[in-house]
Amino acid sequence: MQDRIMDVSKRRGIAYPSFEIYRGVSGFVDYGPIGSRIKQNIEDLLRRHYVIGEGCFEVQCPTLSPEEVWVASGHVDSFADLMVECNRCHECYRADKLLEEVGVEAEGKPAEEVDALLKERGITCPECKGGFGEPYEYNLMFQTTIGTGKGKRTGYLRPETAQSTYLGFRRLWEYARRKLPFGAIQIGHSFRNEISPRQGMIRLREFNQAEIQFFMDPDDKSAPRFGEVADRKVRITDKDDNVLEMTIGEACERGVIRIPFLAYQLGKALRVFEDMGLDPKRLQLRQHREDERAFYSSDTWDVEFASDSFGRIELVGIADRTDYDLGQHMKHSGEDMKVSLEGRKFIPHVMEVAYGIDRPFYCVLESCFREDDDRTYFSFPKKIAPYTVGVYSLVKKDGVPEKTEEVFGKVREAGFFTFIDHSGSIGKRYARADEIGVPYCITVDYETLEDDSVTVRDRDSKKQDRVLIGELIEYLR
Amino acid sequence: MQDRIMDVSKRRGIAYPSFEIYRGVSGFVDYGPIGSRIKQNIEDLLRRHYVIGEGCFEVQCPTLSPEEVWVASGHVDSFADLMVECNRCHECYRADKLLEEVGVEAEGKPAEEVDALLKERGITCPECKGGFGEPYEYNLMFQTTIGTGKGKRTGYLRPETAQSTYLGFRRLWEYARRKLPFGAIQIGHSFRNEISPRQGMIRLREFNQAEIQFFMDPDDKSAPRFGEVADRKVRITDKDDNVLEMTIGEACERGVIRIPFLAYQLGKALRVFEDMGLDPKRLQLRQHREDERAFYSSDTWDVEFASDSFGRIELVGIADRTDYDLGQHMKHSGEDMKVSLEGRKFIPHVMEVAYGIDRPFYCVLESCFREDDDRTYFSFPKKIAPYTVGVYSLVKKDGVPEKTEEVFGKVREAGFFTFIDHSGSIGKRYARADEIGVPYCITVDYETLEDDSVTVRDRDSKKQDRVLIGELIEYLR
Repeated sequence: MQDRIMDVSKRRGIAYPSFEIYRGVSGFVDYGPIGSRIKQNIEDLLRRHYVIGEGCFEVQCPTLSPEEVWVASGHVDSFADLMVECNRCHECYRADKLLEEVGVEAEGKPAEEVDALLKERGITCPECKGGFGEPYEYNLMFQTTIGTGKGKRTGYLRPETAQSTYLGFRRLWEYARRKLPFGAIQIGHSFRNEISPRQGMIRLREFNQAEIQFFMDPDDKSAPRFGEVADRKVRITDKDDNVLEMTIGEACERGVIRIPFLAYQLGKALRVFEDMGLDPKRLQLRQHREDERAFYSSDTWDVEFASDSFGRIELVGIADRTDYDLGQHMKHSGEDMKVSLEGRKFIPHVMEVAYGIDRPFYCVLESCFREDDDRTYFSFPKKIAPYTVGVYSLVKKDGVPEKTEEVFGKVREAGFFTFIDHSGSIGKRYARADEIGVPYCITVDYETLEDDSVTVRDRDSKKQDRVLIGELIEYLR
Repeated sequence: MQDRIMDVSKRRGIAYPSFEIYRGVSGFVDYGPIGSRIKQNIEDLLRRHYVIGEGCFEVQCPTLSPEEVWVASGHVDSFADLMVECNRCHECYRADKLLEEVGVEAEGKPAEEVDALLKERGITCPECKGGFGEPYEYNLMFQTTIGTGKGKRTGYLRPETAQSTYLGFRRLWEYARRKLPFGAIQIGHSFRNEISPRQGMIRLREFNQAEIQFFMDPDDKSAPRFGEVADRKVRITDKDDNVLEMTIGEACERGVIRIPFLAYQLGKALRVFEDMGLDPKRLQLRQHREDERAFYSSDTWDVEFASDSFGRIELVGIADRTDYDLGQHMKHSGEDMKVSLEGRKFIPHVMEVAYGIDRPFYCVLESCFREDDDRTYFSFPKKIAPYTVGVYSLVKKDGVPEKTEEVFGKVREAGFFTFIDHSGSIGKRYARADEIGVPYCITVDYETLEDDSVTVRDRDSKKQDRVLIGELIEYLR
């Protein structure tokens, strides 16, 4: 599956590995002409849902930031993997991954314990069978230096957008005219220096996120619009690995999901993914186990997609981060993060809705990929498709191409992403449009010259309609 | 001027310095809720002009890339400033800036010559009067390390998007079905480790670009749509510092602008800036002098804006980069960048249209800022304004707020960026909307309950119209 999708993806300008001409570097991807359009549409869909629909503020902050930020957030100290280096060939490995291969769970264990486990199991270098040195901490943030001379500061590329949103909390609080709750969404790049990422778009070193931080009164984590999602049926894997099927409303009533706001956001995320074109049957909710949840989080959930190629993939993480992050920045910066509201003074709690972009992007490809007897195509929803419509002339003479240009101009003027294509048989042109998931094809022919009507062909049903040029824009909308 | 704009900008969530709570770091900016909307609109406008209007492909590539890319491009060797460090207080300075202050032009001169000039002029540390050490090269790219162990590679944050677009040339060529010309636009972050940037949004260490690369047949740099810009009158400063006033058509005929495609792109850029709301009278074209033009470029032009606060600002650079970049990557990677076309084999030429985003953003603020007797406002064009419309209820009782919510829902459903505001007098609410440049305000009152009409108030004229709710969406469009 992944191979067939990646083949189309590379050939048709959807996405492909970066730096191919310089040996490639794993964990980086280029979005091509078609992929950029789809990615842009995914981001716009998130904006429609959260900026327009939920009234969130959008912020855009730098991806590079000074060390203080990541000391406060805890990333400088603990955003690290334990590594071992082979004494003979000097290749490096994640110690927990080596142990995982022999069935030993070592994630998060201290260095001495991991060292002992490696020795006990007699694990050697998979490449050359050499022995390993002591395990060492390898921080997953990319480090650099900002400036020079006395003003020089250590900088890191952000491993998440969240912290950069928190830094501006006081300005956002003023902007919100000192009321809670309010949400702030940030869409942008983040970076993790993974050791040797091997899962295509699922694990990238430079990736795209859309993280939303809801700043809330700790005494009020209600969800006024809960009714919109209450009846949604979901499959749930809870923190004790029980698999449950019920509605979101029931999950809340029975205390499976304890915080109403969190339950609402889970339901909303499911709707967002369905809007993107993800198969609802392949989506499920998963609660983090006690031992995997961040120590400061009171509850954390993921929405997962059942991928054919990668198994279950986390698409969005929704967590009650409590007052931890604002509290840390208050402690480290000395800036007061408390607010006064109704006679109380407190640090707001943060409920985070952290979307990846690249993973949903890949899952949209997988979910919408169709193979018929005679064609492959993507059944993208209209708002995700790279182009709404292709415009073709049936013949290359007698004024038909000129008429085609006229129709093309009209569609373009109306703001649709569209292209014109004169080469090859109509069948071939339809096939090319199908392959990148274009919902409609317009063909201009001799009849058009007579009665101003064109053929509009639907991607999924292959049905053809005759539509008057004057009614075309409305038809496409 | 800058102070008044920056005051509104900080107070109203447009843009503000990043990392304020950690002492700040110069050269970084946060886009707030209003600024993000405006920035997004500027990017969308560029997409409409170049992706829809010119049929350019959009690509999105990583901002972090391996060293090989920047060795080939020449940035590792020559994207550097000459620095001197004070022997006493260890502050660092750009040597050419120190010399500039005493009227000596030293940009681009070799280290020994600069050293001699500094000594000859007896220049000492402006802070402590200490002497300087030898000048040293300071590369303006942020450096980091990708991976660990044997696969470890040196990485740099890109100082421009252009190179990452060139790397994928072969894939784009196939995507374009082996035809020239075609254009590829990339919108995203780039980074320059400036020594101590002091000009707000005009000189950032992390900044936003929209760079378009047109790949062309070296024998055909014509512009089929030249007629669209030919009659545009422009002020020109040519490479010999002559100031000329003529149309773009005349500039081409007289050989002031030698390449028709370049002339067309200059005219197009002027139109794009006017569309953003920049005052046409403050825009001019400037040709690079022989001694400032990159050695490989056959001709380079800027569109400049006359800023009240910063003087002339370069907003877009348009350059014939010839076959230099593709040739360099061919040499360094071994990948064939030649194409076969009509029996000829050649490396395509690149015409680059390199927009900044942050600078036009600032200039839009400056150009649209208005001060009346009784108010300040931004006269943003509709497509740039952060919100199209605010929705208000005149009173807080008798069903008016409920009706207001209904109108608000309708406007939001139609896809407009909008907000609802219940607090303060109507006058105050208008003033708040004016301050962030919202073109329309809708007020719901008792009359609305009777005849389903609302008051629509125009930002610029302050005129008020009575509009039926059923006709509201069409009115706003």
